[in-house]
Amino acid sequence: MTTFIISLCAILMLTTVSGLICRKVQLPEVIGQILVGILVGPALLNVLHMSDSLSLFSDLGIIILMFLGGVGCDLQLLKKYSKAAIIIACMGVVFPVAVMGGVSLLFGFKPIPAAFIGVVFSATSVSISVAVLKEAGLLDSKEGVSILGAAVADDVIGVILLSVMCTLVNTGSVDVAGLGMILLKQVLFFVAAAVVVVWVAPALMTLAGVLKAPSGIAVMAIIICLAMAWASNLAGLSYAVGAFFAGIAVSNSDYAEEADRYIEPVGDTLFVPVFFVGIGLQTTGVDDPKMIVFIVIMTILGVITKIVGCGLGGRMAGFGGASALMIGAGMVPRGEMALITAQIGFNEHVLGSEYYSTIIFIISLVTLVAPLLLKLTIRRVPGVGAVDGVAGETVATVGTTEASETSETSETVSAE
Amino acid sequence: MTTFIISLCAILMLTTVSGLICRKVQLPEVIGQILVGILVGPALLNVLHMSDSLSLFSDLGIIILMFLGGVGCDLQLLKKYSKAAIIIACMGVVFPVAVMGGVSLLFGFKPIPAAFIGVVFSATSVSISVAVLKEAGLLDSKEGVSILGAAVADDVIGVILLSVMCTLVNTGSVDVAGLGMILLKQVLFFVAAAVVVVWVAPALMTLAGVLKAPSGIAVMAIIICLAMAWASNLAGLSYAVGAFFAGIAVSNSDYAEEADRYIEPVGDTLFVPVFFVGIGLQTTGVDDPKMIVFIVIMTILGVITKIVGCGLGGRMAGFGGASALMIGAGMVPRGEMALITAQIGFNEHVLGSEYYSTIIFIISLVTLVAPLLLKLTIRRVPGVGAVDGVAGETVATVGTTEASETSETSETVSAE
Repeated sequence: MTTFIISLCAILMLTTVSGLICRKVQLPEVIGQILVGILVGPALLNVLHMSDSLSLFSDLGIIILMFLGGVGCDLQLLKKYSKAAIIIACMGVVFPVAVMGGVSLLFGFKPIPAAFIGVVFSATSVSISVAVLKEAGLLDSKEGVSILGAAVADDVIGVILLSVMCTLVNTGSVDVAGLGMILLKQVLFFVAAAVVVVWVAPALMTLAGVLKAPSGIAVMAIIICLAMAWASNLAGLSYAVGAFFAGIAVSNSDYAEEADRYIEPVGDTLFVPVFFVGIGLQTTGVDDPKMIVFIVIMTILGVITKIVGCGLGGRMAGFGGASALMIGAGMVPRGEMALITAQIGFNEHVLGSEYYSTIIFIISLVTLVAPLLLKLTIRRVPGVGAVDGVAGETVATVGTTEASETSETSETVSAE
Repeated sequence: MTTFIISLCAILMLTTVSGLICRKVQLPEVIGQILVGILVGPALLNVLHMSDSLSLFSDLGIIILMFLGGVGCDLQLLKKYSKAAIIIACMGVVFPVAVMGGVSLLFGFKPIPAAFIGVVFSATSVSISVAVLKEAGLLDSKEGVSILGAAVADDVIGVILLSVMCTLVNTGSVDVAGLGMILLKQVLFFVAAAVVVVWVAPALMTLAGVLKAPSGIAVMAIIICLAMAWASNLAGLSYAVGAFFAGIAVSNSDYAEEADRYIEPVGDTLFVPVFFVGIGLQTTGVDDPKMIVFIVIMTILGVITKIVGCGLGGRMAGFGGASALMIGAGMVPRGEMALITAQIGFNEHVLGSEYYSTIIFIISLVTLVAPLLLKLTIRRVPGVGAVDGVAGETVATVGTTEASETSETSETVSAE
């Protein structure tokens, strides 16, 4: 307990300082938080380590972040762009699996471990993008909802791929019955989630509002959030998916703003900084010079495959060039799902321990670059970048032409 | 993680329901929360158990509750009643140690175990009273600050007594040098706490306000809270004492109200319900009929010794009868300190395992009765009970005469 208290206190102090520096140099705050983790963690100073308690707080950080992502998300807009999101997610899985799996083969991996590495890098962790989108006030933009929707679809595909890989590793063949079970569970979860979003959550939130218990709204929002996170985990999906739908469910009630106001400090003060610092804490130093080539190439590919894959997906779904690029950048971060997949690969002896820690290193690097790319691409999106106050005259002019293109294409999407 | 999420979710659901029932039947909400713990815990249904994660949340619940207690506390009033608090604390230690230690001798305990039982029941856990006082809006009444101040003094005395007991058990004599060290640490803590309250915290809070980071005020308040909790633990005191002074420190800045508004939902949504339910969860059923007599007698004595001891202390410090009774009732709850002391006694083989679990049972029972007694005694305090809206014409008349008595005696206190 004492170690935990002082660790948490140190994390909050350091992230406060890093947040101020990031704002000064106009970097997204999450980058500073991940760097803090790398600095104090095993990679450099080696004074702070991930403990069970910090890991618990980190997991709750993801849950709260995704919940707030859902609260800030526009349900109508999300529905409108759901097909676009699925296209983006599929393209964003195909590219990393094909390219990074292929390159792993070139590095001498056998087919199954190579495919496993591809699957590891197919899983987007959108919570990092949620933090950047929130900072920029873009959760309810059409690009924002597409990123969020695509991340959910991505998680669904990722779970299916992971279970295919696991049965392949263990039995040498694909377990069709097992896969059917997984799909059934997922379908059941999404049906249940729809019921909660449309009926259950608004009714519960109204009940909490009528009963006027102290902190009743906040408590009810957290109950819905935890229950949905648990349900999504039961369906084999990550907690983040359930928490995101819980957020959407609460935003569909009359108390969205109130829930957001109460829950945001809960996340900001205790859980979210631990999550981002935790990413850095999981990074270890790499001694082997041979590994560095692998790391550099895979990091670059990790970024490019998502930008190209999801960007192309975005174009296919009818987005303009700048918007598609922003969506691609928003899908770059990898996090808990990639780490879990890598860990499963390690436990199943598909990945050796030296590659396991290397892959974690790559995940950290990719995730470190991602928020920066997202922030840079946001500025180029007309109508959206202007909010940032960075876009000058020229961009604004380009914006007008591109904006008409985007509005035209978004109609194409809704007409699909 | 999955077990934790569903446990937390269940705790929040059950405490929401119990809270509504308690309000309906006009009981303090904490009683409902403790009963929920007894109901679902090992004592009855046996479906929920204390885990490391729940225990962590419970500890943070105490810290946040005491922090909010400090924020709501009036520093000037606390200073004014500090001497009264010390008198109340001393009397509240002498009575349980003498009476409960004596009765333990009659039950056949040897002198050292008997004294240990007395020490166990000398430690007040004021966080429970803080919840009731907060509910009644009485944290900044003169009775409220006396209870809070006395609880701090009580903790100081408790730590000294516990270390005396430990050296007695281990060496058969009192280690004067060790005691001197403990006292020195405590003095250092209180000097540091004074510096934080007067200068450091207000400066840090102002800095957070000027920097305008999102959730900056809340994060800074939590940083101060955790740092002080850690420091008090370093000095051998409970986390609660440090958190309480952190609250006072924040209330001494310009951002007291803002910090309170942000931190209260943090506690209410996640940590505080876990703390109260956790008390119930630690209660186990008692099979042995011989133990029941011991339990009943010790529970009654646990309540009476604090009410009489602290009530007398209150009278000695110049409070009126009703106020003294309220202060006595506010000092009845036992919690983490008593549990820790009992555990040390168990580890040092002073208490057998059958008596260890019995004592935990008694602690739970005493703590269950305490909020009810406090609520009942609050109603009888003139000027204070009237706030409750319960006091009728008669009470109001009595109030006028007693109020003059109290105002007169409170001057005596300040003149001391």
